[in-house]
Amino acid sequence: MCGIVGYIGTRAASKILVEGLKTLEYRGYDSAGVATVGEGILQRTRAKGKLINLQTKLEGLEDPAHLGIGHTRWATHGKPEEHNAHPHTDTKERIAVVQNGIIENYRELREELKAKGHQFRSDTDTEVIPHLIAEYLQNPAENPDSDTVLTEQSSFLEAARQAVNRLKGAFALAMVSVDFPDELLVVRQQAPLAIGFGQGEFFCASDTPAIMPYTQAVLTLENGELARLTRMGVEVYDFTGHRLKKKPQTLNWNPIMVEKQGFKHFMLKEIYEQPGVVRTCLETYLDTSWDQQSGRSPINLNLPNALLDDLEHIQILACGTSWHASLVGKYLLEQVANVPTVVQYASEFRYAPAPLMANTLTIGVTQSGETADTLAALEMEQTRRSASCDERHAPRMLGITNRVDSSLSRLVPHVMGTMAGIEIGVAATKTFVAQLMAFYFLSLELAYRRQTISSARLAELIEGLRQLPAQLELVLESQERYVEELSHDFADTTDFIFIGRGINYPIALEGALKLKEISYIHAEGYPAGEMKHGPIALLDEKVPVVAIATPGTVYEKVLSNAQEAKARDARLIGVVPMNDADAEDTFDALLPVPIVDELLSPVLTVVPLQLLSYHIAARRGLDVDQPRNLAKSVTVE
Amino acid sequence: MCGIVGYIGTRAASKILVEGLKTLEYRGYDSAGVATVGEGILQRTRAKGKLINLQTKLEGLEDPAHLGIGHTRWATHGKPEEHNAHPHTDTKERIAVVQNGIIENYRELREELKAKGHQFRSDTDTEVIPHLIAEYLQNPAENPDSDTVLTEQSSFLEAARQAVNRLKGAFALAMVSVDFPDELLVVRQQAPLAIGFGQGEFFCASDTPAIMPYTQAVLTLENGELARLTRMGVEVYDFTGHRLKKKPQTLNWNPIMVEKQGFKHFMLKEIYEQPGVVRTCLETYLDTSWDQQSGRSPINLNLPNALLDDLEHIQILACGTSWHASLVGKYLLEQVANVPTVVQYASEFRYAPAPLMANTLTIGVTQSGETADTLAALEMEQTRRSASCDERHAPRMLGITNRVDSSLSRLVPHVMGTMAGIEIGVAATKTFVAQLMAFYFLSLELAYRRQTISSARLAELIEGLRQLPAQLELVLESQERYVEELSHDFADTTDFIFIGRGINYPIALEGALKLKEISYIHAEGYPAGEMKHGPIALLDEKVPVVAIATPGTVYEKVLSNAQEAKARDARLIGVVPMNDADAEDTFDALLPVPIVDELLSPVLTVVPLQLLSYHIAARRGLDVDQPRNLAKSVTVE
Repeated sequence: MCGIVGYIGTRAASKILVEGLKTLEYRGYDSAGVATVGEGILQRTRAKGKLINLQTKLEGLEDPAHLGIGHTRWATHGKPEEHNAHPHTDTKERIAVVQNGIIENYRELREELKAKGHQFRSDTDTEVIPHLIAEYLQNPAENPDSDTVLTEQSSFLEAARQAVNRLKGAFALAMVSVDFPDELLVVRQQAPLAIGFGQGEFFCASDTPAIMPYTQAVLTLENGELARLTRMGVEVYDFTGHRLKKKPQTLNWNPIMVEKQGFKHFMLKEIYEQPGVVRTCLETYLDTSWDQQSGRSPINLNLPNALLDDLEHIQILACGTSWHASLVGKYLLEQVANVPTVVQYASEFRYAPAPLMANTLTIGVTQSGETADTLAALEMEQTRRSASCDERHAPRMLGITNRVDSSLSRLVPHVMGTMAGIEIGVAATKTFVAQLMAFYFLSLELAYRRQTISSARLAELIEGLRQLPAQLELVLESQERYVEELSHDFADTTDFIFIGRGINYPIALEGALKLKEISYIHAEGYPAGEMKHGPIALLDEKVPVVAIATPGTVYEKVLSNAQEAKARDARLIGVVPMNDADAEDTFDALLPVPIVDELLSPVLTVVPLQLLSYHIAARRGLDVDQPRNLAKSVTVE
Repeated sequence: MCGIVGYIGTRAASKILVEGLKTLEYRGYDSAGVATVGEGILQRTRAKGKLINLQTKLEGLEDPAHLGIGHTRWATHGKPEEHNAHPHTDTKERIAVVQNGIIENYRELREELKAKGHQFRSDTDTEVIPHLIAEYLQNPAENPDSDTVLTEQSSFLEAARQAVNRLKGAFALAMVSVDFPDELLVVRQQAPLAIGFGQGEFFCASDTPAIMPYTQAVLTLENGELARLTRMGVEVYDFTGHRLKKKPQTLNWNPIMVEKQGFKHFMLKEIYEQPGVVRTCLETYLDTSWDQQSGRSPINLNLPNALLDDLEHIQILACGTSWHASLVGKYLLEQVANVPTVVQYASEFRYAPAPLMANTLTIGVTQSGETADTLAALEMEQTRRSASCDERHAPRMLGITNRVDSSLSRLVPHVMGTMAGIEIGVAATKTFVAQLMAFYFLSLELAYRRQTISSARLAELIEGLRQLPAQLELVLESQERYVEELSHDFADTTDFIFIGRGINYPIALEGALKLKEISYIHAEGYPAGEMKHGPIALLDEKVPVVAIATPGTVYEKVLSNAQEAKARDARLIGVVPMNDADAEDTFDALLPVPIVDELLSPVLTVVPLQLLSYHIAARRGLDVDQPRNLAKSVTVE
């Protein structure tokens, strides 16, 4: 999603801003820009497309300014054209603003400001902000809050505060003005923003990787906070103008040097990291000294009994790929631990939450820990449960994330880390498999506590989990070349259908989403039994069907559904058990995986689908790691 | 899905068989065939494609035979070619069989029979049956059940019985043999089959409309029953060979003379019938003498208190369009009646049911009342709940269907009829709206009983429901011509995205399904907030986006999501409130509907989407009422 950086100090700002934007590139964007303030000049440079376009423009300029802001934009309102790129300015171009998020009431504000003579030059929601600040600099509103001292300190800060109080929506801001050359203002309201403390220099960014090369002393703003950065220090205020006492924390996150290590794309490297990721998950969460006779749980979750005992319901809130992992989680939690579980789209749940159920564990799943919808849904749920008089409704909140230093961790009291390391490819691969692992551990721990499976069955599943890294390696070794060749057949394919049943139905959804995300092929996933209720009308010889058919309760059923597709001339690709004669009869192309317990199969069946998507997109020459329109971490609603 | 007809009597069978198949045409098929027995000859005629092809072939033949079977096939195993069309015969072509359903163990049976010298000529699962009967006629298995008298009566019947005992799966059968010229055998196992009693003549069919022109005396077979029809009468047996006492019922269903009444297609006629359908629903389920002061419920459901009182949970099982209606139902039941509700795909639930929850109402929703997955899921749920020792788990089962004389009614004790009249178009329209109405009545009745809304709010919603027929008429009148013109713009469009939020998210799914079913355009529905988690990668100027944006809790949010799509050059079509300036700014094409209470909006918002699908498909010259690959009632798994 959009990225913000800002700098005030003694070095050339423009270089630091561009370096910062580079570290945020993986989040997805479609234009970029910077604005600097120095020697009485506000200099703004913007470019459509990749950062290299902005860099090319900047190379021609000598810009010694020591204060500035930068932005990568993921278009929400208005197309990704240069005139819509941030920073945006007021009519006189004295103030520049970058924003992440959405200003919901921008239409009314724009009409109001136009009526007062402000001239608009973009289609964005953001542009109202610099005009609004200019308006309040000219005609300050009365500050109804008399005991504030803020107004005495900076009229820029006060005008910005007044402007922010007019905005509705979720946003983070960074702002500079040529009339206030020692001030960098930043705001956080439902969208992340962090401040880095250097020596005589300060940084701000929407995500810490942009700050990490310079300092590990970081202050993460809370919602409803506004800060002024000068070369002397940082002051934080609430939106009424009261000064707040804050201090930076030292981050123990080491910036990982991310390199492609010989792989053509980060995505392919991350697919190949999956055996290692699963090993790390096993080392972290399995008790290695456990055996069936020990009488202990085989799992180390480090979560309190009050969170996990006497559960009657689980609800999981998530979006996108995390939502798919949660559907696998639902299957496990219901079928292994016998807890009724619902999975909700966070974006739907936050506006129509289900009636409160008793003794319910709420789980938020977000790779980045910053997904706006998921955080808002969790916060809403926590608030309404805390307000309930019935103690059976008390909040029990758990987060599952790959970024344990994220906003999620500040929101919920307990977090399971998914241990996958930083993921650069926008299409999630290793973090999806790591989320599946988290659900195995959680469901087995609950099964142990609730005694819903025998200790022999528990031991069998634990042993099965331990085999997965080697089996993943086998899948990767045996399939890479074949899938690459197979991908040649789909050079002109425009549509794909993925089908699965039971625990592999969510894998069909995930396989379709991967292909859609990076190849722009219209792929769609279905529970196989639903095909004949409508979607089968789509099928003909031009639409390949990928079926996940692995041994278990629904194997024969999936084969029957595949036959129905074949009868419509669809080309059939099967993710099938190794050495299976029935499968060889049925499918035109085989993607074999080792035979494992049905419950563990999703960890293996997803891998050929990741490889298939990757190779189809790579052969088409597409930007696999940064597909169009997409963002790594979705920090707007 | 496949259709079966059969005749034994004194008239020319072949003409009656073809007339019967015509009445089943709307169920969907891709080939057809008949076999007759007379004067020592078994005559079989089959044709790929529509019935007219079969009729053309039959016209050249003089066929006075008075016994025969006929079939329309919807391909499951093997392509829709003539050699796969039913009836199928044994190697010597003495026995002919038609089947609806799936024989799951056909591979093993085929290998076994091939080893014994039987020669197979099709790719179907069905063909094993005539071979198996021929085998048992030659080499009868021993009947372990000694007190049966069946074997003395007919060796054909006994051989058929032995064969049926070898079959696994869900099926209905009709069978004739040239060696038994006074016998028509029929079997029901999980797929519907009915017998009609005439005067010296008997009929069988998979669906009663094929029988209704001849007689209203009908015996519906139960699962596990086998019947022999002769010119003298009907005998019914169970699969062990015991004779059962059965008698026909008189159907009070009047065969509706279905005509297009000037409309080009049944689907368009059915879209226009929707105001009338909603009126009929209101007349049936609303207490017309009710007012806010009466202190009674405004709804007449005629359901026992034991079904509806003290509910803690509702689970809804459905497929396809019924599943979409159920999602709207979930929203209403949760937000209006405050009952936590889950909606499950029947095909998924039957193999991985959720853990039992206490005091749960289970609702099965199926237009035809014959949907195999939904019936099986309901039966499984009823069985496991009946077996539970905990009385809080006792089954509370309710069906919602348009065919109150269907298998659903025999399975569950309580049924709400949706009063839409027979629907001929394969793509459901008026029956979807009628299902929505059923959910309004159910959720308002529960809200009344649970006192979850004030009587003023209840009165407001009832009044809103009463306005719907006139508002539907307004939508139809005002949009028909415009939508027809708009459809010209999509002559070459291959992909569509539909988005909605909250109670209109299921309408986005339904709009996409309609378009997919009848136009074969790859349309996909999404909750609008999910677009940026992946699907937005698909968008460019070639992919139109249809957004449902009507006033309510999520109106601004949908507009924001629509802006995000517009920023990717997508052409935006909005189902929007009449006379809304914001909407006019945002969308390229408007489909305005009257402003109503958000909760009631789905009844109106779905109509422009039905019209859009209809006109796009009709302009492409497609068979709107009988789209390829689809069946009206999905009686196989």
